[in-house]
Amino acid sequence: MFAAEILHLGVDVGGTKVAAGLVNSSGEIVFRTRVPMNARGTASQGLAAVQLAIDQVRAARPDVTLDRVGITSPGPLDPDAGIVLNPPNVPCWSNYPLVREVQRVCGLRVVLDNDANAAGLAEFLWGAARGYRYVFYATLGTGIGTGIILDGHVFHGRTGAAAEGGHMTIDYRGPRCGCGKHGCIEVLASGPAIAKRARDKLVEAGARGARLLTLAGGAAENLTAEIVGASWREGDALAGGILGETWDLLAIWLGNVIDLLDPDVIVFGGGVAELASHGFDRIRATLPRWAINPRCGEIPLLLARYGADAGIPGAAALCFVPGASREP
Amino acid sequence: MFAAEILHLGVDVGGTKVAAGLVNSSGEIVFRTRVPMNARGTASQGLAAVQLAIDQVRAARPDVTLDRVGITSPGPLDPDAGIVLNPPNVPCWSNYPLVREVQRVCGLRVVLDNDANAAGLAEFLWGAARGYRYVFYATLGTGIGTGIILDGHVFHGRTGAAAEGGHMTIDYRGPRCGCGKHGCIEVLASGPAIAKRARDKLVEAGARGARLLTLAGGAAENLTAEIVGASWREGDALAGGILGETWDLLAIWLGNVIDLLDPDVIVFGGGVAELASHGFDRIRATLPRWAINPRCGEIPLLLARYGADAGIPGAAALCFVPGASREP
Repeated sequence: MFAAEILHLGVDVGGTKVAAGLVNSSGEIVFRTRVPMNARGTASQGLAAVQLAIDQVRAARPDVTLDRVGITSPGPLDPDAGIVLNPPNVPCWSNYPLVREVQRVCGLRVVLDNDANAAGLAEFLWGAARGYRYVFYATLGTGIGTGIILDGHVFHGRTGAAAEGGHMTIDYRGPRCGCGKHGCIEVLASGPAIAKRARDKLVEAGARGARLLTLAGGAAENLTAEIVGASWREGDALAGGILGETWDLLAIWLGNVIDLLDPDVIVFGGGVAELASHGFDRIRATLPRWAINPRCGEIPLLLARYGADAGIPGAAALCFVPGASREP
Repeated sequence: MFAAEILHLGVDVGGTKVAAGLVNSSGEIVFRTRVPMNARGTASQGLAAVQLAIDQVRAARPDVTLDRVGITSPGPLDPDAGIVLNPPNVPCWSNYPLVREVQRVCGLRVVLDNDANAAGLAEFLWGAARGYRYVFYATLGTGIGTGIILDGHVFHGRTGAAAEGGHMTIDYRGPRCGCGKHGCIEVLASGPAIAKRARDKLVEAGARGARLLTLAGGAAENLTAEIVGASWREGDALAGGILGETWDLLAIWLGNVIDLLDPDVIVFGGGVAELASHGFDRIRATLPRWAINPRCGEIPLLLARYGADAGIPGAAALCFVPGASREP
């Protein structure tokens, strides 16, 4: 006889789909499913998508007894009150009591948090941040999200809106972000920001931009961070310069984070993290100019265990740590 | 018969003097003394100044039984290890084990922390931050120091170097600070930064600068933040513009702090805090453009109980909260 494996249910809500799965105590996804999400529909349609995803997990694994579910959703949300506030990517829910509604239709206790906080918790439990007391997690992708894990708990601040580090300004006279602020790190160093920098450079690069342009199929508007990365891997100098500038901006931003929080570890996840990991040495070398912390160079910069696929493990992590996120 | 009042000893080390005093459980200073400090002398001369200050307190109040002392010193220091690292303002101590040395010569347990952290703790115990769970404290003066008090404890981070929020960059292409970074809030909004902005403006202000120049005794190099404040109080438009720009920069900076920490309260102390408090309404109005936190406007901005005189209460506060700062 073996003791039954502990499995928890994580549900990750996005703008176009709901992903749900079972995660074991080693952080492995042992079952997963996904259903479409019409984030621009009605609130109850959104709820029905969550319910369907949960029902599919239950139908596939009736042997697993579930008493709770961890749910992640794009912010802003209030994890304490269990309310999704007004996420730009999930407009169907505005001041929506998601925790109460999921409890009502699924009969499960619900723990809610935003995706970056939950992904940071998963890294603390099972990934690159395991064993570290003060964790700063950043997900680099279409946007830049962050999570702060202190002593094994998500740090939420007053209203659950803490750890929006992606919108910290390092250049208040700089370009405007969709968030409304100028020169926050998201508008300077996210995937789309890398692509935009590449497009801007192409204009003046002339022949030096040939490789980038070819990889983009001849059209600058097709450029993405992935294409810039591919061009850099081939040794293209223009792409290298674009990425180098991006890593320097990340170093300036991390200098601020370090001077305020002095974390034990910094972990990068998300779709652009692997590319950024090639810049870790440059970031480490640049950091001392942008952090007064005399030991900033000692802080490990690590690539996350869960890259762009942190949704389900993150959501399930909320169930594995009692009180890791606030429960209503 | 009355129960004996609980008194704790606080010692605040500065570049030119050591201030020491006894503080009661209401945060009132009931006895104080100060001795000169030659911060450019030898390490043992610096230690002797601390010892002399403590001896003077003991001689004046032999009725008070002391078992510990809280000491604050300019950073950087390592509160965990009890070591003063390499403070620019106290060069006599470099990697100096102050905690061990004071214990040796005075026979007291020693709790060490930097001045801004300790002042924040004093505000939490007895001042404007009383009763708040997540406190962000900033001291505005010659520099900008900050302290983070979470659940009644100073947040130190990995090495005790957390909460150096005064050196968070909001304008990486901006002027260079003495700390080596560009465009950190200290180089943009400290007392000397306000004075420098005034001097710069005077050059092009012509007749509009008459009042400021008169108050500075006719010499722009005499301008200080206090003089700019005095001129503004008289209704001078140029001074008002200079201060308004400063408050806007503080709002940008606080937006970053709020987006990362979402504190319950923000408290300003230090010599320039009273002047800055006249800008609180403008800062509150500006904040929503520089914080994505939808409830940033609710966070109280408060003037500290202890303004420029937070040294002794701050140091003593370290003794009032067991484990408030790390003890070796």
